[in-house]
Amino acid sequence: MRAVDIIIKKRDKSELSSEEIVFFIRGFTSGDIPDYQASAFAMAVMINGMSPRETADLTLAMAHSGQTLDLSNIVDIAVDKHSSGGVGDKTSLTVLPTVAACGLPVGKMSGRGLGFSGGTLDKLESIPGYRCDLTTDEFKQQLKEKGIVLTGQSLDLAPADGKMYALRDVTGTVPSMPLIASSIMCKKIAAGAQAILLDVKTGLGAFMQTLPEARELANLMVDIGRHAGRETVALLSDMNQPLGHAVGNALEVVEAIDALHGGGPDDFREHCLHVSAHMLMLGKRAKDLSQGRALAEKAIADGSAFEKFRVLVQAQGGDVSFVEDPGKLPKANLVEVVNAPRSDCISQVHARNVGEAAVRLGAGRARKGDPIDHAVGFVILRKVGEQVEKGQPLFEIHANERAKLEAAREEVLQAFAFSDQPVLPLPLFYE
Amino acid sequence: MRAVDIIIKKRDKSELSSEEIVFFIRGFTSGDIPDYQASAFAMAVMINGMSPRETADLTLAMAHSGQTLDLSNIVDIAVDKHSSGGVGDKTSLTVLPTVAACGLPVGKMSGRGLGFSGGTLDKLESIPGYRCDLTTDEFKQQLKEKGIVLTGQSLDLAPADGKMYALRDVTGTVPSMPLIASSIMCKKIAAGAQAILLDVKTGLGAFMQTLPEARELANLMVDIGRHAGRETVALLSDMNQPLGHAVGNALEVVEAIDALHGGGPDDFREHCLHVSAHMLMLGKRAKDLSQGRALAEKAIADGSAFEKFRVLVQAQGGDVSFVEDPGKLPKANLVEVVNAPRSDCISQVHARNVGEAAVRLGAGRARKGDPIDHAVGFVILRKVGEQVEKGQPLFEIHANERAKLEAAREEVLQAFAFSDQPVLPLPLFYE
Repeated sequence: MRAVDIIIKKRDKSELSSEEIVFFIRGFTSGDIPDYQASAFAMAVMINGMSPRETADLTLAMAHSGQTLDLSNIVDIAVDKHSSGGVGDKTSLTVLPTVAACGLPVGKMSGRGLGFSGGTLDKLESIPGYRCDLTTDEFKQQLKEKGIVLTGQSLDLAPADGKMYALRDVTGTVPSMPLIASSIMCKKIAAGAQAILLDVKTGLGAFMQTLPEARELANLMVDIGRHAGRETVALLSDMNQPLGHAVGNALEVVEAIDALHGGGPDDFREHCLHVSAHMLMLGKRAKDLSQGRALAEKAIADGSAFEKFRVLVQAQGGDVSFVEDPGKLPKANLVEVVNAPRSDCISQVHARNVGEAAVRLGAGRARKGDPIDHAVGFVILRKVGEQVEKGQPLFEIHANERAKLEAAREEVLQAFAFSDQPVLPLPLFYE
Repeated sequence: MRAVDIIIKKRDKSELSSEEIVFFIRGFTSGDIPDYQASAFAMAVMINGMSPRETADLTLAMAHSGQTLDLSNIVDIAVDKHSSGGVGDKTSLTVLPTVAACGLPVGKMSGRGLGFSGGTLDKLESIPGYRCDLTTDEFKQQLKEKGIVLTGQSLDLAPADGKMYALRDVTGTVPSMPLIASSIMCKKIAAGAQAILLDVKTGLGAFMQTLPEARELANLMVDIGRHAGRETVALLSDMNQPLGHAVGNALEVVEAIDALHGGGPDDFREHCLHVSAHMLMLGKRAKDLSQGRALAEKAIADGSAFEKFRVLVQAQGGDVSFVEDPGKLPKANLVEVVNAPRSDCISQVHARNVGEAAVRLGAGRARKGDPIDHAVGFVILRKVGEQVEKGQPLFEIHANERAKLEAAREEVLQAFAFSDQPVLPLPLFYE
């Protein structure tokens, strides 16, 4: 078998066999197949596509390109969740303790933020002492003893995916459905997931800006799951405007804790209950969505969900006093409330523009490895469909530098659009 | 300007600007743009194509990626010819002395054979002492003094093309019309050609197997020539069966010398006269084809064409006694005449299969740099459309090893097809 023949086959729109895909990914991982062949392959896939079967084979080949985690002797069913990323998405911080409190052990490896999209690890590191670098043994031990883990990637999971992603980034092959879907799914499978809940975001602040694109990606990932023997459910949720109110690391932790106490913004709380109910169904803790939702509501109401979060933070070395009193979390020096410039109905809060403004404020990273400021960010007080009066509070800016605050004020104001006609609130979920 | 944006533009089927193409080729030549970006670019071009204007820009960018040759103070008009390659194509050996004898100075840089397709330099090196490594100064000096040069590439002409070709070979991007056409034309332009005659072969032993493909390539190269201000004429000629009788280096030199003496196979002599007539027109030595043809016939008849060949060989260090007595050229130890296995009309002599059999016999190279045996090859005595009787000589094998001779006999016999119905001879030229 020769790499060039596999490239030619895909160039000519033929379907690759499992053996060909495994050969190519193995060779690419070991370095026998050089980057210039992999990039030509990626471009051929980008333009000519892949069948769901090919995509599933690619996913499995990448999942098995490095170490894999086996959780089968620790939990009866390993359920993982994945969000395709967005602005203000602090769902894992609330959902994981909630389902763990309902008796479903969850161990999750999360990522860092890049560009307009935030990352769960960055948010957790607002809590002094919180470790995101657990070893594999620590991961397993904590999952067994505490029933909850939320950390960074300890193993060299799916190294082929890391190599391929770096190459796609510089060869114009990022927006390929089969490559996006396999990249997401291979890491979940390598991390031992037996059932996967996908939260595919769509809208202005999502990677998939239109509903048909998001639906295509969701369907493809569900197909991959089926081919790979992993029960997979995909939700399509809105990311035209930020989720909840808080955008920025410590601000989002505060909001997640509010939600664990039964408070927080309506949209975020509702989102978390829906996601929790699906996870509990996938983990066989609930027979249907309404039972799952009732369990989640109960865990929040009786304090066991918040207690699970406390256990998580303590287990990973975090100072729990910051969780018990979120007022202790990092605070920005400058807080400004920006008022509505007119009396009208809000028709848009452009999620991506808010996310990019947050990056410039210091809450996110333009490039991998950039430092971030956990304290800064925004609180979006009014959302699409709400009627505001001129002079009423519209959003808050939390900044540590005056010049950045000034710039952010204009940027976030520009993210808002108003209408003199009533506007319906955005749906939380599409399907 | 960023390489990845240019790749993305081509991926999305947009037309690239001249500046973008120059930027990409300059960056690729200098190494600032790495192979993995160039191969993704090549695949995008391969699948999405390029307009004639883009292809001309690519050609000029590659032509100017290294040194270029300026012949304008040596000849009044620099005419070059290019054959797209085939089996038994010794045309340059006969045509160049012929047109030079008609007063059109010609200096040509030729290549070596690879795969089933032979190379002019390999043929010339059958003559002891013949140098194919003239320096640029020697090239110019000889062109000025003798009016004829036939050597290898001395300058680092179009280095971007060399780099790109190596990459295309291993990334499945060889059969792209814009990439093939620009690769051929950029070397002619870099070598100083002001007028270019293209002999585009089509058929079983050509890179373009079908007439529509060959026509497309020919039209594209003529378009490039027009965009680049070089008068360009393309001929479409048959390569279903080998050209002439001889296939193999010394055997082809013998046949070329026969043709210079007015002999040789009919098809080869006719081919050479037609090509010569076109070159003389392009070089303003003839006002039309019939005048060009008459001049060429006269140069052959009066011995001046052969004399020019003698001058060429002597100027480049070759032993002219081998030209005066071609019987001295390298001879194989084993010569076998293979007779016709049946009485019928010949319907096919599969050029590519004959060419590949010649490679296995030692006359050509499977890989770049492989040694070759100048003495071995075939003489195809009967061609398509001829009636043979069982037992009449069909072809000769010239070999230096018994086992290779045995294998070649079967392979070349298989290249022949017969019909009990009369078959028309193949045309020499299509358009």
